[in-house]
Parts: sequence; C-alpha cells; structure tokens
Amino acid sequence: MADPVRIVLHPHHGAGLADALRDQGLAVATPEHADGVVARLASGAEALVTYRWEDRFAVGAVRWIQALSAGIEQFPLELLAQRGITLTSARGVHSPAVAEHAVALMMAVVRGIGAAVRGAPSRTWRPVGAFEVRGMTMGVVGLGSIGEAIAGQGKALGMEVIGSKRTAAGYTGAADRVFGPGDVREVCRRSDVLVLALPHDPETAGLIGSAELDALGAGWLVNVGRGSVVNEAALLSALDHGELRGAGLDVTAVEPLPEDSPLWDHPSVVITPHIAWSTDRLAGRMADLIATNAAAFRGEAGWVNRVV
Amino acid sequence: MADPVRIVLHPHHGAGLADALRDQGLAVATPEHADGVVARLASGAEALVTYRWEDRFAVGAVRWIQALSAGIEQFPLELLAQRGITLTSARGVHSPAVAEHAVALMMAVVRGIGAAVRGAPSRTWRPVGAFEVRGMTMGVVGLGSIGEAIAGQGKALGMEVIGSKRTAAGYTGAADRVFGPGDVREVCRRSDVLVLALPHDPETAGLIGSAELDALGAGWLVNVGRGSVVNEAALLSALDHGELRGAGLDVTAVEPLPEDSPLWDHPSVVITPHIAWSTDRLAGRMADLIATNAAAFRGEAGWVNRVV
Repeated sequence: MADPVRIVLHPHHGAGLADALRDQGLAVATPEHADGVVARLASGAEALVTYRWEDRFAVGAVRWIQALSAGIEQFPLELLAQRGITLTSARGVHSPAVAEHAVALMMAVVRGIGAAVRGAPSRTWRPVGAFEVRGMTMGVVGLGSIGEAIAGQGKALGMEVIGSKRTAAGYTGAADRVFGPGDVREVCRRSDVLVLALPHDPETAGLIGSAELDALGAGWLVNVGRGSVVNEAALLSALDHGELRGAGLDVTAVEPLPEDSPLWDHPSVVITPHIAWSTDRLAGRMADLIATNAAAFRGEAGWVNRVV
Repeated sequence: MADPVRIVLHPHHGAGLADALRDQGLAVATPEHADGVVARLASGAEALVTYRWEDRFAVGAVRWIQALSAGIEQFPLELLAQRGITLTSARGVHSPAVAEHAVALMMAVVRGIGAAVRGAPSRTWRPVGAFEVRGMTMGVVGLGSIGEAIAGQGKALGMEVIGSKRTAAGYTGAADRVFGPGDVREVCRRSDVLVLALPHDPETAGLIGSAELDALGAGWLVNVGRGSVVNEAALLSALDHGELRGAGLDVTAVEPLPEDSPLWDHPSVVITPHIAWSTDRLAGRMADLIATNAAAFRGEAGWVNRVV
C-alpha cells in the first residue's frame, strides 16, 4: 500500500466523521480553527475535507478537495483547475437521509401529526380528518440524487410519482413520468404532494410562487432542498386564502427562521431546523466515499463524484 | 336483481358512509338515534350496519349485522347464532389507513418531528441528531390484518420486519420472521421500532410493561392498536429512566387522554387522538365491503368476513 494520504478535516463537519475516517485507516488531522487548516496545508498535507471554502486553502501541496456537500457552488472551480487540484463532491451521501426526512414531513402534514402535537399543551383530543398517500401523486421538483431517492420512497409507499429534471430526455429513474424544467407548473397541477429537492441557484430562486401553489391546489408542499426556492409570502397566502392543505419545511428562505415569521405559528405548517441530512448513518457513508477517493488519489481506484 | 336489502345505519358512523352506501345503490335508512334504529328494525329492516351493539337491536326481521369495526368483542355471538343472525366484521377495511398512520408516527418520533413542532412556540431552531429507518428492525406485535399492512410498509421502507402472531406456524405474510405470542419479549429485544397492533382483550392488557420496554432498549414504541396493551407508568419510566428514545401513540389506556397525564407534555412522545383509522378513503372501502355482503345476503355472492 502507498503512503497514506495526509488529509486535513475542516473543523466545521458533522458528528462522528473524524472517528469514522480513522476507522477507515485514514491519516486525518483535525485542526480546531480555519487558521489551523491553512497551517496544515502549508506544511505538506495533500487533501482537505470541507464544507466551506476560503481561497487561502489553495496552498502548499494540496491536490484534492473533498466537499462535504452535494452542491459545490462555494468552490472556485477555475482556480482549482488552474492549480491542478481535484474537487470531489458528496453527491449521493445525503440522499437516503434526506429522502426519509421528506417522508417524515409528508406524513406529518398529510396525517395531522403537526396539528396533534401543537394541540398537546391545551390537551386537545379532537379527531381530525386525514388522508392516505397510497394512490396519491407525488411530484418531485428536482430529480437529482436526492430527488431520485425521494421518488423511490414515494413509489414504495404506493404513490404515483412524477417529477421535473433539468434534462428530462433519456430519464431512467424511479419516477413514472418526468417533465422538463419549463413544465414545473404542470407538475404542480398533477400533484397531490409536491416535494422540492432543488439546490439554490439563480434559476431556482422563487421558482415556487403563487401560480405554482394555485396549480398544486388542495395538496401539500414539502421542501427539503433550499428555502430560497419557495416564495414564503405566496406560501402563506396559499395556506390562508388558497386551497393548500399544509406544508412541511426543513429549509426556509432565511435560516434560522426569523422569530417574527408567521410560518412558526401556522397550524398547517411543520418546520424542522434543516436536519434532513443529519442522521447517525451519515458519517459512515461519508467516510466510505472519502476512503474510496483517497484510494483514487493514490492511483488505486477511480474517483467518485469528481467535479474538477 | 333481487329486492334491495333494507339496511339501517346506526347513527354513530364515520363521515361520508351514508353517501358512499347510496352511491353503491343500497337502500339505507339513517335514523338519528338508537331508538330509531330499533324502530326501523322492528318494522322490517333486514340488516344493521353498526359499531355499537345493544341487545334490543336483535328484533324483527334483522338477519345480518355488519360491524363497522375489525374487532367484534362488543357483539353477543351466541345470541346472534341462536337467532340465525349473520355477523360480518370490517376486518381489513381500516388496515391501509392504520398502516400509514403507523408510518407517520414512526417517522415523527425517529426523525424528531414531534420535538421540532413542540419547539415552534419558543422559536427553537436547534438541529437534533436523527436516525434512518432503512436497515433498522421493525417488530410488529400482532400480525393480524392491520399488523400485516404495517409489516408491508416496513419492508417498503427497507426495514427488516419481524413480528408476533397468535398462530405463528404456517405464516406466509410480509414479515421476515414470526414468533409466537409467548415470545413477545424476544421480538422486543430484536427490534429497533416496536409497533403494537393488538386488540383489547384479557391476554393483551398490560402486555407491554417494564420488562418488554427494557428488552426494546434504545428504540422507539408505536401503538396503533389499543391503549390498554401498554403499561403507561412503565412507558414513562422507560422514557425518563431507561433507554427508550420515543413513543408515538394513537391510542392511550384512557381516551381522551386525561389532562393530568404526563404523556401530554413529554418531549419524546407524539400523541394523536385515535385517528389512525380515519381517512378520506375509509367510507369508500367500507361501502365496497357492505355492497359485497349485501349481495351475499341476497345469495348472489359469498360473504366476506363472516364471523357468525
């Protein structure tokens, strides 16, 4: 076996990752501050594992950056390419966790769990009408790695699943029917439960507004992507004056959700604090990916999720 | 077609059932009080659709009782047999609804939905560690019609499913392994999520106590059967002093749950007011069953769920 790759782990990372990497036999330095990251990289470390990017990290012998996120919009792709630094993303690592959280939020709003928990302090024992998801249509906006996992859960629960994808042609995933990015409103129209799994970018900001929520009608909205995708004023209006039955949100436009947001107290809204990705299994999956890419770094395997 | 069966619908029934029965072309009387039920039966109605039983309903020309419940412990089986009255249960009609509610409660406690909703009034945005159910073991205590549907949902979510059943021999359902009623503690020991789907009877009362919850350990309890199955003092002790991580309860020992029950305010407990069975699809499924049994009454089909 070649010399171990000297890896630096940025201090902002999920619980258990350092231990999981060491369990994989990897040599990992864990500085407590970003300054320590720079010092380690300047003194010969070859790889950095990080959510966050600062240009001062492109120093010394660093040749490989492993992102801890699926999205890589925070990284300077051209700079990395110029310096000959490989960038790999964590695409797919979060998908199983986020997909289960989407199920949890969907079931919470469709089955009145949120209303029941909100009623506990006042001892409210009032049966409410609920619905069954089997046979409903789930529309997944954003059939990427996470959206695909959500679509698979929808099928497993007996739902019809449709969705949208930047490149709909040649689609071979779990959804029964896929539309292009220009047909999001049609996806809304056909859906009972609309699940958003989009990243934040200029094309997705405010994508779900009053016209889309009107098209969704008497259904439910679940967002496990990015809060900026939803126009929250339009969402509140659809809940209060439109037909929308409920919303389960793991992400909001501003996080933490501001104290004066009416979403906090809305009886039909369930909010979780951006935790969909965070489970006991995450560190193990991430360490598996990093071990594979460390082998790739040593020339012993192929890269997974290589972006640059 | 033979003369329509003259059916009386007891006033205590779910929303939409009368309309759903008429949509099936059935002749249904809908008295507003139990006295009216007796009057209709005394004056020639042949069938009664009811949750509740009073012995004065065994009058006149009544020849068929359709229970609106899966359990038929409220009916006097010997009396009905003596009078030549057929009794059919609603076994299976509630199963899809209850199974989805079990998923909703399981996901709510495993994914921290209850804690997040409880924190909304104080604007709590504090990420909590959550878990993934895929790969966990679900133990279903009571693999009857409802338990089977729950087991199917567990398999669909990628869980290992075990369970217990009064007659385990020759089992051919969805669970991977089935134990007899004497091995409930072993089911607890092997399970991460224990789901109770038992009826109330002398054998099930208090079945899940401190020894069973100790055996379950650092897992979760979901009850969609009957509240009497769980020793609630033992449950609270397991949550506060044992390892139990959370409980999702659609049923409690006394319903409505008394205002002074500590379960109301427990941070790890999610309570819904006995609504698992109640969805928008129930009336349609019930009417389908009753229409089939009305045809059986006329001798045009076989009985479904005949008990007497």
